[in-house]
Amino acid sequence: MNAYQALTERFQRLARLDHLSAIAGWDMQTMMPSGGSDARGEALAELSVMHHEILVQSSTAELIALAQQETLNSDQQANLNEISRHYADAALLPTELVEAKALAGSRCEQAWRQQRIENDWQGFQRNLTPVVELSRQEAQLRAKALGCSPYDALLNLYEPGMTSQRLDTLFGELIQWLPELLQQIVAKQPASSTVQTHRVFPLSQQKALAESVMQLLDFDFTHGRLDVSAHPFCGGVPTDVRITTRYNTDEFLSALMGVIHETGHARYEQNLPKQWPGQPIALARSTAIHESQSLFLEMQLGRSKAFLQRLHPLICQHLTAATDLSLNDLVQQVQHVSPGFIRVDADEVSYPAHIVLRYEIERSLINGEVEVSDIPELWDEKMQRYLGLSTAGNYRNGCMQDIHWTDGSFGYFPTYTLGAMYAAQLFNTLQQQLPNLDEAITLGNLAPIFAWLKENIWSKGSRFPVDSLIQQATGETLNPKWFKQHLERRYLGD
Amino acid sequence: MNAYQALTERFQRLARLDHLSAIAGWDMQTMMPSGGSDARGEALAELSVMHHEILVQSSTAELIALAQQETLNSDQQANLNEISRHYADAALLPTELVEAKALAGSRCEQAWRQQRIENDWQGFQRNLTPVVELSRQEAQLRAKALGCSPYDALLNLYEPGMTSQRLDTLFGELIQWLPELLQQIVAKQPASSTVQTHRVFPLSQQKALAESVMQLLDFDFTHGRLDVSAHPFCGGVPTDVRITTRYNTDEFLSALMGVIHETGHARYEQNLPKQWPGQPIALARSTAIHESQSLFLEMQLGRSKAFLQRLHPLICQHLTAATDLSLNDLVQQVQHVSPGFIRVDADEVSYPAHIVLRYEIERSLINGEVEVSDIPELWDEKMQRYLGLSTAGNYRNGCMQDIHWTDGSFGYFPTYTLGAMYAAQLFNTLQQQLPNLDEAITLGNLAPIFAWLKENIWSKGSRFPVDSLIQQATGETLNPKWFKQHLERRYLGD
Ligand SMILES: [Zn+2]
Ligand SMILES: [Zn+2]
Repeated sequence: MNAYQALTERFQRLARLDHLSAIAGWDMQTMMPSGGSDARGEALAELSVMHHEILVQSSTAELIALAQQETLNSDQQANLNEISRHYADAALLPTELVEAKALAGSRCEQAWRQQRIENDWQGFQRNLTPVVELSRQEAQLRAKALGCSPYDALLNLYEPGMTSQRLDTLFGELIQWLPELLQQIVAKQPASSTVQTHRVFPLSQQKALAESVMQLLDFDFTHGRLDVSAHPFCGGVPTDVRITTRYNTDEFLSALMGVIHETGHARYEQNLPKQWPGQPIALARSTAIHESQSLFLEMQLGRSKAFLQRLHPLICQHLTAATDLSLNDLVQQVQHVSPGFIRVDADEVSYPAHIVLRYEIERSLINGEVEVSDIPELWDEKMQRYLGLSTAGNYRNGCMQDIHWTDGSFGYFPTYTLGAMYAAQLFNTLQQQLPNLDEAITLGNLAPIFAWLKENIWSKGSRFPVDSLIQQATGETLNPKWFKQHLERRYLGD
Repeated sequence: MNAYQALTERFQRLARLDHLSAIAGWDMQTMMPSGGSDARGEALAELSVMHHEILVQSSTAELIALAQQETLNSDQQANLNEISRHYADAALLPTELVEAKALAGSRCEQAWRQQRIENDWQGFQRNLTPVVELSRQEAQLRAKALGCSPYDALLNLYEPGMTSQRLDTLFGELIQWLPELLQQIVAKQPASSTVQTHRVFPLSQQKALAESVMQLLDFDFTHGRLDVSAHPFCGGVPTDVRITTRYNTDEFLSALMGVIHETGHARYEQNLPKQWPGQPIALARSTAIHESQSLFLEMQLGRSKAFLQRLHPLICQHLTAATDLSLNDLVQQVQHVSPGFIRVDADEVSYPAHIVLRYEIERSLINGEVEVSDIPELWDEKMQRYLGLSTAGNYRNGCMQDIHWTDGSFGYFPTYTLGAMYAAQLFNTLQQQLPNLDEAITLGNLAPIFAWLKENIWSKGSRFPVDSLIQQATGETLNPKWFKQHLERRYLGD
């Protein structure tokens, strides 16, 4: 057995541990009774320690060095690159730093749940400060190895190849035109559509609707399922993808659009390449590309008029309290734009403003240009500038609303808006390549769309770098104009 | 850190792997879509290989030897004994034998599912022969190390301390009186009670009934749950016990009694000692003791007239198709005795005959006194002698009905009847210690019963050998007369 083969066996073992961790993690969010959580947490932590031990043992580095001398085909070479990247990401940090960060992060996250309710910025600041401090240490170590800025080193954990220089341009331009576009859209849009009050949408009906929409979106129920959790997510493994949603009996659209979103993540996972089992090359390309697939289904496809025409009869059929919902009302509700405080509730036009704000703050924070104590003022100032809303003193609905920073996931936020941009660019290419796309969508004939995504994105896994993947799929690397054009056309145009 | 502490840390790690394997295994039987099974099987197999590697590494033996020289208190000494036993059980077999047996077993089990339907003894015999051959090799290796007969070596994997010499006496005496008792009972019992045909018991009603009975039996829903699987079982971990049942809309009693049975297993698990987390001493004592707890709840308590009086209103309340079921009919149905071909459908009087038959055959098989080709004739002869039924040519409902031998689980069958005997002995002690027990049961005042079981069995874990555990709880080691007395009193007496 040569070194490359030995490495693939090691990574297959790791993938099997990841499998168990994904299923036990899913169970924790969906099935586990409350009393099970301590022991489950310990079991998952043990598995993650064992995963780390296997990955960073010195023989991994030796095998990588040996494999680099072996004759490999281009697939193997690409896989070896991913193997090296995963190894380096994991091996770079001293164990004490990893443990200290995990501890500070879980302490901060735990306390945050209550502190947020109490609008307690002082308390939160005390817990967040060590998390930021340890994240800076991590970023500096990684930056030194990669030869980049501290923030870029964290960004690369989620989005390999992306730089803050490029984000500065992408997001800098975006935030030039977005506030005005928002104002135009809000001014143009009809007064809020008839609100259906005092209606009840039973969970069983919503679930049946969700599953019929998943069927329409070609979710493979022999390799996945839909359940309920407090925070919707897409988990499991490619052979068994577990998506979740959260139903509300007062209102059905958030659960439904959430299911369409997670189905986008799920179809990517279900259609990842099968010819390299357990290998890093077979994994999803990046966080932003993953989000591009969920936003492709939710935003580009799911909230389009054409798709809503197909969705409308399904809604009326499954929900007895929505039989009189008109198509016009449905479109108005689904495409309603309204700037607000909360990122996760934001429409697709306001959403990028929330992201640019967070990106600018976390980049400066990690690079040491601002401190934790500066956050509330920066937040308020940017919210006013980008969305016309003040969060002064309103920490709960301001800088304390998100979970991401509590455990030190700096570098994650930009992937949401990168995903939206990739989704727009992919959809635009599809429109050019498939004639009568809208008509096909209205008829529910989605097979050509999925065949295109499968060929160009899903089946590629991590075979190519992001830029090359997008270039091959659309003829150019990331071009933000398609996202702008999408917003203008949907909300101002036709 | 001394050697004993190092061992406890190693076993805690192993317990955490067992946790993940239990949850992923439960998921496989209850939640997993069909397409997930190959990858799940591989992930679970990988975890089991890692478990084995950690357990049998040479340093485990060295640590055990060192710990035996250390000053330990009596709890620690008992734990060290269990640690040594688990280590020896695992380390004794060469890896090739373990793998060959797993392969032959899974091939035999797979094929058996279809061969049983087709009554194909010849085909089954071809696959069972290598399983028996490899089990004999395993038994001989274990026997040499333990200094006992080959069959006893396998028996000890499930029931530490039990011998076939003792079973020969216990089961030999039992099978002297059982056939005649069965005839007396069948002759005495009223003609089969009114069969309720064409009734439908909706799953949702049966589930609500099952959960209310679990509540009555003090199942802790913050540390466990009830789901559905093709083959009912009790799985999960003590902090999160997962029991399952299988509902049938034609008939509700089998699911309900099955839930009571699994609740017995579950309460044992939920109440195992908490002061030795992850240590072998905190595990359930043995397979027969585990079964004694399920049979205590199902047979001793659950099918008693006193308990059925308490159960009756719950049934009428939850099942709209059973509102007219009389208490007399319920008792008659629950206590109906009818010798038949199938072990898993057998009443508690016939059941031991099925077990003695299997015990006698598997003991001779493993000790090399009979061959696989002799099984059908032996089966038919014993079925005629013990239950008055012939299985000649009827392999499907004869020697091909059980899964246990297909993967080489020889030594398991006796634990069912040992469990029934222990249950009767425990219940008899309780009757003597708690005055007015029947009245308390009728009133649903079960707390004293559970307090007694918790103190005498559950909270002991594996702190004492089986004989000592039973001696402490009941004042004597296993005495089969209590089981005989129980059957006579319930089915002939009072
Ligand atoms: Zn997403
Ligand atoms: Zn049982």
